[in-house]
Formats: sequence, structure tokens, C-alpha cells
Amino acid sequence: MPGKLYNRLAIVGFGLIGSSLARIAREKGVVGEIVAVDSSEKHRERIAALGLADRVTGDIAEGVAGADLVVFAVPVLAMGEAMAAAAPALAPGATVTDVGSVKGSVAEALKASAPDHVFVIPGHPIAGTEHSGPEAGFAELFDGRWVILTPDEGREDAPYVEATAKLATFWRACRAQVEQMDLKHHDLVLAITSHLPHLIAYNIVGTASDLEGVTEGEVMKYSAGGFRDFTRIAASDPTMWRDVFLHNKEATLDILGRFTEELFVLQRAIRMGDGQQLFDYFTRTRAIRRGIIEAGQDTEAADFGRTPGAARTE
Amino acid sequence: MPGKLYNRLAIVGFGLIGSSLARIAREKGVVGEIVAVDSSEKHRERIAALGLADRVTGDIAEGVAGADLVVFAVPVLAMGEAMAAAAPALAPGATVTDVGSVKGSVAEALKASAPDHVFVIPGHPIAGTEHSGPEAGFAELFDGRWVILTPDEGREDAPYVEATAKLATFWRACRAQVEQMDLKHHDLVLAITSHLPHLIAYNIVGTASDLEGVTEGEVMKYSAGGFRDFTRIAASDPTMWRDVFLHNKEATLDILGRFTEELFVLQRAIRMGDGQQLFDYFTRTRAIRRGIIEAGQDTEAADFGRTPGAARTE
Repeated sequence: MPGKLYNRLAIVGFGLIGSSLARIAREKGVVGEIVAVDSSEKHRERIAALGLADRVTGDIAEGVAGADLVVFAVPVLAMGEAMAAAAPALAPGATVTDVGSVKGSVAEALKASAPDHVFVIPGHPIAGTEHSGPEAGFAELFDGRWVILTPDEGREDAPYVEATAKLATFWRACRAQVEQMDLKHHDLVLAITSHLPHLIAYNIVGTASDLEGVTEGEVMKYSAGGFRDFTRIAASDPTMWRDVFLHNKEATLDILGRFTEELFVLQRAIRMGDGQQLFDYFTRTRAIRRGIIEAGQDTEAADFGRTPGAARTE
Repeated sequence: MPGKLYNRLAIVGFGLIGSSLARIAREKGVVGEIVAVDSSEKHRERIAALGLADRVTGDIAEGVAGADLVVFAVPVLAMGEAMAAAAPALAPGATVTDVGSVKGSVAEALKASAPDHVFVIPGHPIAGTEHSGPEAGFAELFDGRWVILTPDEGREDAPYVEATAKLATFWRACRAQVEQMDLKHHDLVLAITSHLPHLIAYNIVGTASDLEGVTEGEVMKYSAGGFRDFTRIAASDPTMWRDVFLHNKEATLDILGRFTEELFVLQRAIRMGDGQQLFDYFTRTRAIRRGIIEAGQDTEAADFGRTPGAARTE
């Protein structure tokens, strides 16, 4: 078990991710002090009432002053502005990271106003739920999930490499697994594992909500046939997802093109009544599900375990 | 509590749905005797070992003889053949139903060889998991879920109406809710709430499994960002789903056309950087999620309750 890794952790943006990080960092005792920075008066009141931080402030510069680890956990579009507000107050040698779902544009936004005397190491914990706000967080959110760090490529000076290693140790102490990759690759991988699935989920729910001949009430009543699985992620924070698509435009459109291509293949197979092609396609996709369960990223319990009595493993 | 509603229940096809129905019917004591009919030797051995029925046979005619309720729970494509094999042995006055996900073509297949002296009342319980086989079933599968019955429209003779009412009572005794609608409307409603979601899930998993620049291992590792939600339903039985698309072609292609139309609207908004349109779209879809939870068709527990510590309601 690591002892105190950082003396003071400042978390800018104290929603689902920020507040979950505060909870687990405190539980694990890996930071000396936690400062919560949030622009919402209502959030600050909740944070204080729940006792989630040692200090709560709405002022970014005041919040990050003296911190040796600063985590930006605001929506992607707000990263640049938050960093600009923090920059004059950042302590020399501080590590600055973030939790944004897009890395290319966020890394650029962070670096635009970061002083030379801090270590900027963008990051992204691949974890979340459909709920938002400081009361939605919980200490177990990162258990076994992956955090991708995207440090500057080719930068090999010892202090930067050490700061990166220490940040990885911090995330592992918070029960996450850590991987490094370059910004561009991150954005492509997440386009398929996260951004496209969200877009499609929003799209399928949107299609259902505006259909001649079928009422919304019917859609809700009979949603257990598969539809409801899409509605969970289509209930995610609209601001966050607007920002993701605006900031990972290229990779999202690229992956979306492949998706549409495949969809036309399936559509043609249905129209032509090609049962063999459909069967082969539907068989192939089963293997990926097994891989995800073996990788510890989902539960084998039938129906996600939401049906009582169905908690079985095969 | 109803007493014995039927003296002998024969279930033809003893997989996830068939075996779940046997379990709950026995638990509730609403049938006198249960006969399991399954063409798979392996299934029959499992059924006998688990003691799920009073009698097990591979012969359809033998199995349905003397039953006053016969439930066909075989894949959609196999319904007609199963019914033809059962027809000569069906008892006068027996109620014959099914659990197929498509109703138009299944109703036709059942009626093609049904003798005049039985009541054919097609049905569809909207419940399931991604697992298959007799050991995958469980008594709670239908708890609070909807069963749609599609009796002959305009047929108002008292015995048929009474047989339909009794079948509804049977399903309610098995803890399901019951609704009636016409065949065509069923197939349209299910196209959006079940068939399109499955097609899209298969398609998104298929897209991910064949991508340049991103490995399958990466897709699995980072699947918690949303992708994994699709893999559960894309792990459903390939035979069942091939049959569904072949037999609900018209409605599926119709709904798929609307889906693609909406997708192009979102794609254009991303390409043009129209944040307001994306935000409005993503906000609208949240309401449907709330409606589904209020309708008792999903859990509010974050992340489907699969993350320990996240079981909260808001």
C-alpha cells in the first residue's frame, strides 16, 4: 500500500467523476488534503453537507494554489477556460491532469495556458454511470476499470517520467488499472468503445420517440425486449456528450462511416432474406462478449444481474 | 390466487423461455402436470436431471396428447413444423399458444395446420436474457414483464373469448402483465422496442470486431465506456434472431429506414459543429429513460446495479 502520494489534491469540477475520485482517494489515504472546486453554488453546498472535501471553493485559482496534484474534471469544452483560470496559481512541480473523454483537443487546451513549471499529463478514466453531480459519485467507481494516460510523446526528461509514474501509482491506489497511449490513438479507440455507442443509443431512443403508429407509452411498456439497454447511456449528461462529439469529430465520423457501411450489409441481408449471412454475423459477435467478461469489464450475471434469481454464471 | 387453471401443460421447446415458464407455473401451482417436449437429447437429459417437468419426451405428438394448454417455445422458423407434428394429437378444446417474438408469420404458421377443435391464441412474453437452454431459465423471468396476446380479431364466439381470458389469467398467475393487440401492430411495436435494438447491437459489435487501427483486445479492455452495454444483447441466440429478421422483414426495414434518417441528421450536426442541435437531441432522450423506470421496466440503480456501492435512487 502506498502512503501519502500527494500532500494536496485539488479537484476542479466535483461531479460524478470528481467526487468519486475524492471519495476513493480519501478512503485509501493517498493524499493529505482534498480541495473541491466547483462553480455551482448548489454543488458546493452538497459537497460541504456530505463532507466530501477538506475545503470547498468556487474560485479556481484559490482552490489549486499549493496543490501538488490538480485534476480537471469539468466538461471537455470547459477545460481550456478552467486551466487558464488556474494557471497563475499553480505551484511549481505540480502535476496537472484531467478526466476528459477526448484527449487530443483537451491536451491542447490544457497546454495552451499551462506554465512551464508544471507537469501536464492528460488522462481518462473509463468509468461512469448515467447519473451526474457530487451526490452521484461513489468510491468503487474505478474498481478494476482502466485509466488511460496520454503523456507527451518523446518527452523523456526524468522529472516528467517520474511525475507520470507517480500519477499512475495514484490511480492504481484508487483501484484502477493504468495504460499509456498516444492522444490520437486514444481518440480512435474511444470513438468505437464509447463515443459511437453513445451516439447510436441517443439515436435509437430519438427514433423511438418520434414514430408514427407507436406511442411513447408503448415504447416504454415493452422496452424489456432490448430497447431499455440503450436508454441508460442515452440518459447521460447532454453537455458532456455534446462536447465529446464536437471535440472528437474526425474519429467519430470515421467510425460512424464504418458503422453505416456494415448496417447496409445487414439491411441488404434482411431484404434479400439471406439467413445464412445473418446467422454467421450474429455468431461472430458472441465471442466479443465473452472476451469482455474474461477481461473483467462486465458481469456474466444474466440481464446484468437486474433480474432477481438470474445471478448465474455459466 | 387461482387454483389449477389447466390439468396438463405441454411446453414444446424447453429453452430459456419454456423452462422459465415451467418453473413459475409449478411454483404457483396453476397446472396439474407439466410435460416437456424437446428435440435435443442433451436438453432432455438436463430437464430430467433438474426435475423441471413431470414427463420429458422428444416426440411432439406424444407430448401434447391430452394437454389442455400447449405452448410452443421453439424458434420462430420452427413453429409451423412443430405445429404440424402436434396437430393430429391435439385434444379438442385445448388452448394452443406460443412465445415467438414475431406474431404475423407465426400466427399464420400455427393456424396452417391447427385443427378446428383447438383455440389458437398467439402470444409473446417480452422477457429474456442473453443466455439459452433449459438451465438458463428461472421462475422470476416474467415478474412484472408484459405478455402480448394476439387473438383473432373480430372473433367473438364465447368459447374463444373465454379461452383467451383464461390464458391471460394463467400468465398473470405467472406474475406477468397482459395486453392484447393485433398481430400487425405487435410486429411494428416490437420492431422498435426489440428487433431494431438487437440489429444495431449486433452491428456495432460487428463494426468493432473488424476495425483497422484498433485491436479486439483494446475494444474489450475499454468497453466500460458504453460499448459493453451493446454486447449483452449482441450475445443473444443467433438462430432466434436470424428468424426474427427473416419473419419481420417489412417492419424492421421500415424502422431501420427511420433510424438511418435520424442518424444522418446527427452525423450532419457533428460535421457542421452544431452543438445546440446535439444538446437538444440528447436532452429529449432523457425523458424516455425516466418513463421506462416509472413503468417498472428497468432499475434506477446506476449502471444497472452492476457496480457495487452504486445502488442508489434519485
